[in-house]
Amino acid sequence: MADEDRLRSVDEHLAIVLDGIGSIEPIEVTLLDAQGLLLAENVVTDIPLPSFDNSAMDGYAVRAVDTRSASAEHLVEMPVVGDVLAGATSRAGMGPGLAMRIMTGAPIPAGADAVIPLEDTDRGVARVRIGRPVRTGECVRRTGEDLAAGALALGAGAALGPQQIALLAAIGRDRVVVRPRPRVLVISTGSELVEVGQVPSFGEVTDSNSYLIATAAKDAGADARRIGIVPDDHSKLLDVLENQLLRADVLVTTGGVSMGAFDVVKQALSELGTVEFVQVAMQPGKPQGFGHLGNRVPIFCLPGNPVSALVSFEVFVRPAIRKLLGKRSVQRATVQAIALEGARSPAGRRQYRRGVLHREANGGYSVSFAGGAASHLIASMASANCLVVIDESVTEIVAGSRVTVIPLLLSNR
Amino acid sequence: MADEDRLRSVDEHLAIVLDGIGSIEPIEVTLLDAQGLLLAENVVTDIPLPSFDNSAMDGYAVRAVDTRSASAEHLVEMPVVGDVLAGATSRAGMGPGLAMRIMTGAPIPAGADAVIPLEDTDRGVARVRIGRPVRTGECVRRTGEDLAAGALALGAGAALGPQQIALLAAIGRDRVVVRPRPRVLVISTGSELVEVGQVPSFGEVTDSNSYLIATAAKDAGADARRIGIVPDDHSKLLDVLENQLLRADVLVTTGGVSMGAFDVVKQALSELGTVEFVQVAMQPGKPQGFGHLGNRVPIFCLPGNPVSALVSFEVFVRPAIRKLLGKRSVQRATVQAIALEGARSPAGRRQYRRGVLHREANGGYSVSFAGGAASHLIASMASANCLVVIDESVTEIVAGSRVTVIPLLLSNR
Repeated sequence: MADEDRLRSVDEHLAIVLDGIGSIEPIEVTLLDAQGLLLAENVVTDIPLPSFDNSAMDGYAVRAVDTRSASAEHLVEMPVVGDVLAGATSRAGMGPGLAMRIMTGAPIPAGADAVIPLEDTDRGVARVRIGRPVRTGECVRRTGEDLAAGALALGAGAALGPQQIALLAAIGRDRVVVRPRPRVLVISTGSELVEVGQVPSFGEVTDSNSYLIATAAKDAGADARRIGIVPDDHSKLLDVLENQLLRADVLVTTGGVSMGAFDVVKQALSELGTVEFVQVAMQPGKPQGFGHLGNRVPIFCLPGNPVSALVSFEVFVRPAIRKLLGKRSVQRATVQAIALEGARSPAGRRQYRRGVLHREANGGYSVSFAGGAASHLIASMASANCLVVIDESVTEIVAGSRVTVIPLLLSNR
Repeated sequence: MADEDRLRSVDEHLAIVLDGIGSIEPIEVTLLDAQGLLLAENVVTDIPLPSFDNSAMDGYAVRAVDTRSASAEHLVEMPVVGDVLAGATSRAGMGPGLAMRIMTGAPIPAGADAVIPLEDTDRGVARVRIGRPVRTGECVRRTGEDLAAGALALGAGAALGPQQIALLAAIGRDRVVVRPRPRVLVISTGSELVEVGQVPSFGEVTDSNSYLIATAAKDAGADARRIGIVPDDHSKLLDVLENQLLRADVLVTTGGVSMGAFDVVKQALSELGTVEFVQVAMQPGKPQGFGHLGNRVPIFCLPGNPVSALVSFEVFVRPAIRKLLGKRSVQRATVQAIALEGARSPAGRRQYRRGVLHREANGGYSVSFAGGAASHLIASMASANCLVVIDESVTEIVAGSRVTVIPLLLSNR
């Protein structure tokens, strides 16, 4: 009586999902708000870096030619005719045969072409003695040697970490155009659900899925917000969805997609958009809904079991969020590990088992299973740090065999 | 004239730094604010998970014994005496030989001891036909099978990712005690510095270090704030430090530690606390200041060159932030890579070179250098994605040799 032949493959469903994810209009943000985002413009610098010749060391600005005869046996002595501090806003000048004391970063005086570091001198104040010849340009940071005026500082698509933010600051950019964090709104559906903090009566369950998915979406880089619980009531769900639609780049619901007869989510959605409910050849996570509301906002209707919701998020929603962020790689990295125990998996389904990944002394990985195939086990889910992927064609893993593992690394470790 | 023999080793300075980092009093936060932090209490659950026997599938609740004779040839037919929905707040009951339609998550009725999934039946409404025997307990999630009442849900020190936050929600915890994010305040010192967005005059430089260090600290998990620029003026710096002291768990300054004669930071700090200025056997990053202000707040005085500041942050400040967060591992992970070019490094100094790490087809890594040993190159720093570590005893790396690399992975990739 089953209809396994009508299952859609994981890869096919993911392709349909990603195809249904557009892009979000880039926005201009202040530099500190750009952290972790991708640049959506080519940034060309108006000013060179460095913007003036300056000293790489604390020392004495000199003419190299004046030090040509210096050696440890024959010190060259010069009058010190002044100090050049960092922040000097006019260019000092000096004549041949003279030296000026200079600070790291201070402008090279006109007439000098090199700096001899403090530690290679007698550190004299009125006169300085120098024990070695200095090369022309020694300890001088040349204008534009790091970046010429008019050069591309960072290209569209660059990931903005600390070093890139610092570069943008250095060239005077206090705002940049970036791909914004997608606004992901998360709704738990189910009349059995109560808010965390309320004492559940018999038959009631505290909502944990909206916390799970909102934090997972934030971890994936989204600006995620937990809308909370909506009971299995067609008009209430419709109200909430209509209200949130304008504020969302992505909507995610959990629950309400399992049983035809009691299905509220499907009915409400059909009035707001086109959402397709399909059976995907995976375990857990078979019932999946995906589509668009108001012709614009992608919506994911994930199953209500916490483990099913997490696996569905990892397999379909995280790649969608990463695509919206503009990331080149939308999938998590995988590693190969030795299975420490055996497992069975249904033929024709891709199974995602929770696991605990261990690093071995030899640098490789091993993995044990956590919580079996049941998808309601929240505590065992919390003990897992990875998903073990068992392919559609594989029905049994024996202990000691090699398996593919997706480490569930946190973005803020 | 050099005094290399008075250099302190990197490892010794790091040990002194970590020894000078205490801990921050744990605080209670709401569940969503706990994301990414470490739990600072043992959380025991008052309620079992699941909190009542419920159905793992959409199907029919039955007595297993009534299905004993069922087979594909000999279907067993039973009257359906009602529906049990998820969220039913009183327990239904049924007699022998009867069935009730039941939804995933709904409470098992009294009198039933198993559930047969919808797809293994004819999905009848008034009467249902069943084609196979059902085991006692089949498709029933037992009270407490995931977590018993009184059991430890999560122990102190657990990292709170999405799965752990979901577990805390499921057991009704809306607030938890965590180790807070350290408040890290970042100051750039230097009279040559101007704010980003201002057009620098000759000799002026746009401040980029405070952006670099504030974003790096945020990336490391801190609640980081950029205080901004303080000129090389003793009383102004003193004012700023005194003002910020109460709001900070860690202070970081950059600049002002290079040249004895022009040193403002050292003077100001000596009035507020005990800060030691030392020469560390590393390149870049030789001049380092570390100590405490007001007997309490650790302060790092990093060199002012951007590359020196970044390397100093990675080597000393990041481990301090991670210690304050309670992380077991305070160091970044390293990988081994094949150097694609040669490099020289001074004897007795640990050199940190910026590099570009490549993943090879064979799964290994190779690394090329970016920007040489010069420490003022911000644009080349922005092109690097790792630091290559050349040990104190090594003076030359030849192309093709194996080197230790610290990938500068972003926490929000």
